[in-house]
Amino acid sequence: MAEKLIIFDTTLRDGEQSPGASMTKEEKIRIARQLERLKVDVIEAGFAAASQGDFEAITAISGAVKDSIICSLSRANDRDIARAAEALQVARRKRIHTFIATSPLHMEKKLRMTPDQVFEQAKQAVRFARNFTDDVEFSPEDGSRSDMDFLCRVIEAVITEGATTINFADTVGYGVPELYGNMLKTLRERIPNSDKAVWSVHCHNDLGMAVANSLAGVMIGGARQVECTINGLGERAGNTALEEIVMAVRTRKDHFNLDFNIDTTQIVATSKLVSQITGFAVQPNKAVVGANAFAHASGIHQDGILKARDTYEIMRAEDVGWSANKIVLGKLSGRNAFKQRLDELGIKLESEGEVNAAFARFKELADRKSEIFDEDIMSLVSDEEHSHDNECYRFVSLAQHSETGERPAAKIVFTIDSKEVTCDGHGNGPVDAIVNAIESKTQSGSELLLFSVNAITTGTQSQGEVTMRLSKAGRIVNGVGADPDIVVASAKAYLSALNKLHSKVEKLNPQI
Amino acid sequence: MAEKLIIFDTTLRDGEQSPGASMTKEEKIRIARQLERLKVDVIEAGFAAASQGDFEAITAISGAVKDSIICSLSRANDRDIARAAEALQVARRKRIHTFIATSPLHMEKKLRMTPDQVFEQAKQAVRFARNFTDDVEFSPEDGSRSDMDFLCRVIEAVITEGATTINFADTVGYGVPELYGNMLKTLRERIPNSDKAVWSVHCHNDLGMAVANSLAGVMIGGARQVECTINGLGERAGNTALEEIVMAVRTRKDHFNLDFNIDTTQIVATSKLVSQITGFAVQPNKAVVGANAFAHASGIHQDGILKARDTYEIMRAEDVGWSANKIVLGKLSGRNAFKQRLDELGIKLESEGEVNAAFARFKELADRKSEIFDEDIMSLVSDEEHSHDNECYRFVSLAQHSETGERPAAKIVFTIDSKEVTCDGHGNGPVDAIVNAIESKTQSGSELLLFSVNAITTGTQSQGEVTMRLSKAGRIVNGVGADPDIVVASAKAYLSALNKLHSKVEKLNPQI
Repeated sequence: MAEKLIIFDTTLRDGEQSPGASMTKEEKIRIARQLERLKVDVIEAGFAAASQGDFEAITAISGAVKDSIICSLSRANDRDIARAAEALQVARRKRIHTFIATSPLHMEKKLRMTPDQVFEQAKQAVRFARNFTDDVEFSPEDGSRSDMDFLCRVIEAVITEGATTINFADTVGYGVPELYGNMLKTLRERIPNSDKAVWSVHCHNDLGMAVANSLAGVMIGGARQVECTINGLGERAGNTALEEIVMAVRTRKDHFNLDFNIDTTQIVATSKLVSQITGFAVQPNKAVVGANAFAHASGIHQDGILKARDTYEIMRAEDVGWSANKIVLGKLSGRNAFKQRLDELGIKLESEGEVNAAFARFKELADRKSEIFDEDIMSLVSDEEHSHDNECYRFVSLAQHSETGERPAAKIVFTIDSKEVTCDGHGNGPVDAIVNAIESKTQSGSELLLFSVNAITTGTQSQGEVTMRLSKAGRIVNGVGADPDIVVASAKAYLSALNKLHSKVEKLNPQI
Repeated sequence: MAEKLIIFDTTLRDGEQSPGASMTKEEKIRIARQLERLKVDVIEAGFAAASQGDFEAITAISGAVKDSIICSLSRANDRDIARAAEALQVARRKRIHTFIATSPLHMEKKLRMTPDQVFEQAKQAVRFARNFTDDVEFSPEDGSRSDMDFLCRVIEAVITEGATTINFADTVGYGVPELYGNMLKTLRERIPNSDKAVWSVHCHNDLGMAVANSLAGVMIGGARQVECTINGLGERAGNTALEEIVMAVRTRKDHFNLDFNIDTTQIVATSKLVSQITGFAVQPNKAVVGANAFAHASGIHQDGILKARDTYEIMRAEDVGWSANKIVLGKLSGRNAFKQRLDELGIKLESEGEVNAAFARFKELADRKSEIFDEDIMSLVSDEEHSHDNECYRFVSLAQHSETGERPAAKIVFTIDSKEVTCDGHGNGPVDAIVNAIESKTQSGSELLLFSVNAITTGTQSQGEVTMRLSKAGRIVNGVGADPDIVVASAKAYLSALNKLHSKVEKLNPQI
């Protein structure tokens, strides 16, 4: 029988650290539930000591998820670890993941500690964490640029203290498959108690090799856990993409000979959910989950496909959950049908009041759009959740007009702390006019870094989903809004971004 | 001294085969000129026998580019090869690239030929190609799934016939670095005359490992040419990304010990040009060229960056050409300043008439947008070129209005073969209304597959660049339009897509 590869998802922790990808507690719970449906083994739900928001999200996910192990990150100190343990209290299965930098550069420049101090702190952290759970993971941050002798010394000591997983981190995405895999192999050979822990890989994609590095860690180095994120979300060029790892291992089982628990048919749904919540688009030529990943052009190739599917397809689209859009609901669908579809999509709203509010929005949408797809429902619920969180600003209505030769004009009505205001604005286009109208009242002074619109389904009848990324005083947030009218969607996205800026979140973002 | 790695760019051939990425001749010339500035060694400009359009594009690029070798693909038959040679006639340095499938599956199901027939045809093709140039490349299509004995036989024979480059193609993206690299190594060891040719790698990214496979081909297999595309453009999950290969080799020179000719500071400009012309967005977490590739979040990490840049950065943003947007022109800029900027951007318009038309559009834009960036100029020129090609439909003006509670309405004026028409439409949003208005006259019956908007620069003052992907009777085209008003940009994009659908292009798309 093939050995098992443990899939550790860190979309909610390392993925969330992408500038602009911060999520609300409700959004994180929805993603965690979907990750459970995907059958990931471990969900890193956050970094409990980073912020009150992270702490609460981990607590909530610990209560909501039953099958996956829930993990919190913590620096190698008692306070962080106690905080992680507290957040994980109700989790059925819990893991504490503690880390400290081991590379000369990081120890000297960032930690300002000697190697001996780092060694002691790593040991103490693991020992302390074991008071709360038997499942303790340790990561040497910037491991791939660390001194091998020192790494061996630290890792042997933390395994003796009870670390059950050792995660070899390529923090800056510097690895090359052969070298990275061989470093891991050397560590496992040289450390006498290395067989007492599961070895794990954690790679970044700065040089485009995160997947290959991870798999070299598995094949050459003997790792049996891969840390990854949905869509390869993560800072800079992102983390190892879960969907690519899983499909590589499955498609080349002849080579890897490993099993995993993942239900691959949930991959596309998970990818869409993460993209929609974070506002991070997936490019068409992204492996496995890109819109073109299974699309073929015409000519010789099409001919090949017709003659034998295997000529050009090494995976089947349906294996990862690609399927045609299905019309699921329409104008005449009732509250029960709507609620049932929410259940089927795995969306649990907290109260009947929320279901009613979502249903009202559904009816409103169905009046304007004849065919309602799953994606529309997901976006509608997401919108609903957004508006409950930190609800300072809320969209009410707008009117806008543009005409060649005239300056576009808009009027918007929205609420500020439940009080309605009406503003007018002009601009280069209707969206600019709307933003100017909103700014005339809110004067946020934020800078628009990114504006993008994607249709949620195909056809012009589709809703447009607008992402606006704002920056103010060093903070970056993404606001998302959906509506069949992209000007309305833009107004909602801008207000949602302002709401996120409004909620002052102080947060630490560790790097592993 | 380090050996040289040859960079072979196939954005204009394999990249263009992405559904929707087809380009006009003028667009291809602009990209080819930029590839020359990037200093790629070989530009695969197209597949001459595929269509009249490909033939003309190769001819034009052969005349426009001086430094890079210009290459045309051709199947392994005399007609294709003669056509390639004809298209390349004026090229200062030319290469003919011929291919034939060698895997059992492709030979049997697609070619319906015996191995002996394939062997003969490969030999004859290379012999015939040598009549036209000393620079002949041969690719065994689906090489990585071919029988090694047969591959050795074919490759030895084509090298004897004079093939100077042997390109080992992982056509379906099935490779794993170690295996792919070792196959190449075995071939080079077993084939007696293998040292008479340069060996090349050509990988696809279906399992997320195209870069690592290519580099394994280089390091383990001894290849000295990498075939790649800008942004990893290409069918399905795309080809090996040029920018990732180049930056991996440069950043890990300690390991690879190879030189290349590429001017890395041209990478971002090239990436933006290709993305803008094809309408294929680059996701934020794309390595090297994604908007986030060099962006860092706050917290511990920021602190690290401040303390020592090397803690988290292995490449510098400026090395690949990332720099802050610069305001280059404004309302008061004259025709000379505009023309000079075009020169600096490497944009050569064919006639004074075209410069005048572009300048008129520039003035019109400057009236509506106070700061004009390089990206705006590029988009404006691109728009200008679009409108010259296959100009059946052309935007004139529009008016649109939407208001909460009412059905959005639009009126558009456009020309059909230079005759003005005016139409009205309603829809779920202003874009839907515009499309309905246009369809009421054109009745194209095409299906909208994708709608996306991206801001060209930051700020709401930015122009929106809209991509609309239409499908009709099996053909897929991308239309692109830019304007500060995204409804206008959408109208232009839709008309541009209809123009592309209107021009009947019959084309073959080979797979390698």
